Amino acid sequence: MSLLVTDDALAAFALAPGFSCAAGACGLKKSGAPDLALVWSERPCAAAGVFTTNRVQAAPVVLDRETLASSAGRIRGVLANAGCANAVTGERGMADARRMQALGAGAIGASPDELLVLSTGVIGVFLDLAKLERGVGALRGPGALRTPADVARAITTTDTRPKVAARAARLEGGGVTIAGFAKGAGMIHPNMATMLAVVTTDARIAPVPLERALRAAIERSFNRISVDGDMSTNDTVLVLASGAGPAVAPREESAFTDALADACASLARQIARDGEGATRLVELRVTGAASERQAHRVGDAIACSPLVKTAIHGNDPNWGRILAAAGYSGEAIEPAKVRLWFGERDEVQLLDRGLPTPFDAAHASALLALDPAVVRLDLGLGDGTATLWTCDFSAEYVRINAEYTT
Amino acid sequence: MSLLVTDDALAAFALAPGFSCAAGACGLKKSGAPDLALVWSERPCAAAGVFTTNRVQAAPVVLDRETLASSAGRIRGVLANAGCANAVTGERGMADARRMQALGAGAIGASPDELLVLSTGVIGVFLDLAKLERGVGALRGPGALRTPADVARAITTTDTRPKVAARAARLEGGGVTIAGFAKGAGMIHPNMATMLAVVTTDARIAPVPLERALRAAIERSFNRISVDGDMSTNDTVLVLASGAGPAVAPREESAFTDALADACASLARQIARDGEGATRLVELRVTGAASERQAHRVGDAIACSPLVKTAIHGNDPNWGRILAAAGYSGEAIEPAKVRLWFGERDEVQLLDRGLPTPFDAAHASALLALDPAVVRLDLGLGDGTATLWTCDFSAEYVRINAEYTT
Repeated sequence: MSLLVTDDALAAFALAPGFSCAAGACGLKKSGAPDLALVWSERPCAAAGVFTTNRVQAAPVVLDRETLASSAGRIRGVLANAGCANAVTGERGMADARRMQALGAGAIGASPDELLVLSTGVIGVFLDLAKLERGVGALRGPGALRTPADVARAITTTDTRPKVAARAARLEGGGVTIAGFAKGAGMIHPNMATMLAVVTTDARIAPVPLERALRAAIERSFNRISVDGDMSTNDTVLVLASGAGPAVAPREESAFTDALADACASLARQIARDGEGATRLVELRVTGAASERQAHRVGDAIACSPLVKTAIHGNDPNWGRILAAAGYSGEAIEPAKVRLWFGERDEVQLLDRGLPTPFDAAHASALLALDPAVVRLDLGLGDGTATLWTCDFSAEYVRINAEYTT
Repeated sequence: MSLLVTDDALAAFALAPGFSCAAGACGLKKSGAPDLALVWSERPCAAAGVFTTNRVQAAPVVLDRETLASSAGRIRGVLANAGCANAVTGERGMADARRMQALGAGAIGASPDELLVLSTGVIGVFLDLAKLERGVGALRGPGALRTPADVARAITTTDTRPKVAARAARLEGGGVTIAGFAKGAGMIHPNMATMLAVVTTDARIAPVPLERALRAAIERSFNRISVDGDMSTNDTVLVLASGAGPAVAPREESAFTDALADACASLARQIARDGEGATRLVELRVTGAASERQAHRVGDAIACSPLVKTAIHGNDPNWGRILAAAGYSGEAIEPAKVRLWFGERDEVQLLDRGLPTPFDAAHASALLALDPAVVRLDLGLGDGTATLWTCDFSAEYVRINAEYTT
C-alpha cells in the first residue's frame, strides 16, 4: 500500500521514456507558487481521456473532448494550469481554452489540435491570458522548472503533497513504463470528481484500445475514492501513449490494463489519503456481494457517510454507522447476513450475521487509528467484491472549506 | 419562519385536546436526563406511521408496522425512549420491543397491540428492560414529569432544543388542532432519516385518509431536510387522531393535509436548524424546474454537499459549489439557463443564464450569515419548485460525531 510519496520517491519519479516536461509560475495562484505544467512528446501519441459526468462542464473539458474526437492518434502534449478552473465562463471561457491550447501547441511546435488542456482552481473566473502567455513562453526558457516532480507540484491546489506513480508492464516486445501524476483534495467522489491526472506511457497502442484500457482502469481506481461526495466540473484523466516502446498486442491488453489500473489506483489512494484535513487513508473492502456493482454501491454509501468518517477520525468503533450506511445504499442487503471486521487481516470482528459480537474496544479503536484503517464488510450474498478508498473527516476539513476563497 | 422554539413557546406548547402525557428518567441516558416519554388518549385513535427506508430496520420500526397493520383504528398511545435505539439487536431486540409495548400498554390500561413504540440512541445495544420497567411504572406515579415540553425533551439525544409545533385547521364541523413534537440532530437526510416525530390531533378521520395525509405532509416537510446525508435505522413519524373533535369530510382532506404539512414543516425546519454543530438554517428554494421531482433532486444534491455547507458556514458566496452540486444531481439541468440568488427577496444575483454576474461580495456574504440563509436556484426549464432545508456545516459537527460514544 503506497500512501503519500516521500521526498525521495518524488525526486526519483520519471515520466515514461520519450516524454519531456516543464513547469513554472505565472501568477494564476495568488501565492506565486508554480501553476503551469507542460508535458510533451516529440512523437505524436495515441491519447484517451475520461471526463467528469457533471452536467456543468468546464471549457477545457469540452475542448479536450473535441480534440480527442478529431486527433486522438496524434496528440503531442498537455498544458495544465492551477489557480483558475475556467469553468462557468461561457463562450469567452471556450475562446480562452482555445487560446491556451494554441499557446501550449506553439511552445512545442505542434498544431493546436494536437494539444490537450487542463485547468483547476476557482470556478467562474476568466483565465488571465496575459499571465498565461508570459508563463507558457517562459516554460521553454532557461528559468523553467524541469523535473516531473515540479510538474506534479504545479497542478496541485489544496493538496499537501504531489501525487505520482509509476509501474512497469512486461510485454512480448519488451518492457513498457506507465508513469503519471495527479492532483485532487477536496470535491473527490467516485464518479471522477475534482481531480486531474496525466498518465504517460511509451507503449504502442491505438487510441481505441487505449481508451478501453483507461476506462477499465478508472473503474478500479479513481471511481473508487471519495473525500466528500462532491464532484467537480473539471475532472479529467488523460493518458498519452507515445509508441516509442513495444506494442501492446491484442492478447496483452489485459496485462497493460492491469498495470495502468495499478498506477491509477496508487494515484487514487494518494488523493484519498490527502483529502482535505484527512489524517489517514481508509480502505474499505466490501466482499460477499451479489455483484461487483453491488459491492461498489454499498461501499460508496459507507465511504461518503460523514458519520462513518468522523467516527473513524475519532477512533470510534461505531459499527452501527457503517451498517446503517450500507442499509441506505439502495442495494438489497440482508442485514441478518452481514459480517464486519476491522484490520488488515480481519483482526477484530464486530458483527456476525447481523448481530453485534463482543469485541475488544481498545483493539478495535487502535486498528482505526492506523494509516490505512482497514474495514471489511461481508454481505453474505455472493462473490462480488470491491475495494474503495476514502479518508477520515476532521474539523480541519471544515476549516479549509469554509475559508477557501471564492 | 419558525426557527428553534423559545422557552416561552415551549412552555405554551400543548398536545391536541384529549391527549395526556408523561415523561421521566430511567437511566437509559448515561447523563440521567429524562429518557422516557408516554403520550396517550383515553379514546382509541386512528393512527398512521411513515418509517425509514433503510434496509436495516430497528425492532420498534418492525413492531410498529405490524401493530398499525392490525390495529390502526384503535391505537391508544406511544411509548418512546432515548439512549438506546434497539437496532441491530436481532430476535432478542424484537422480544424487547414487544415487552416495551406491553409495559406502555399496561401503564395506560390498553392492550399491547394498541400501543406504538419508538426508540432512539446507540445502535447494537440491548434495551435494559429492568430500567425500562421501573421507568414506565414511575410514569404514572407522582414523580413523573407532566408537560408536553417534558415529553419533547425526553426523546432528544444530541438535540440542543426540543422541537414542537402546533397548527389549527378550520373544518365545517369546527376547529381542530394538530400538535406534535420531534427529535433529530445527526443523520438527518431527506428520505426520513434519524428522527422521531409524534403528531397528535383531535380530528376525526379514518386510518386510510390519515395515512394519505401523513405521506403527503412528509413529502413536503421531513423529506426536504438534510443535515449530513445519512439515514438511520429508526426514523419514524407517527400521527394519532383521537376523533374527539370534528370530522374531516372527504372534501376537507386537502385542508387537513395542508395544516398537517405545515406543522411537520415547522418540526422539520427545527430539526435542520438544530443539526449537529449548525449555526444557522439554510433555506434552499429551487424554482423553474421541469418538475417538482427534479427540483427536489437538484435541491437534495445541493443540501447534501459538504462543500456548499462549509462555504455557507464561512459566509463565502462560493456559488460555483452550488452550481457544481446541481450539475451532479443526476438531473438534466442546462447550465446555460441557470440563475442564482441569495437572500429572502433575491437581494443579490450571482448567476444569470449560466454566467457569473458582478455582485457585491460583502452583501452576498452578509446574506449567508443570516439565520436562515436563503438561496434560490432557478433552472429555467419549467414550473417545478421545491423548498428544502439544511444547515451550515461547522467544525463542531466533526467534534460531536468523532466523540459520540458507541
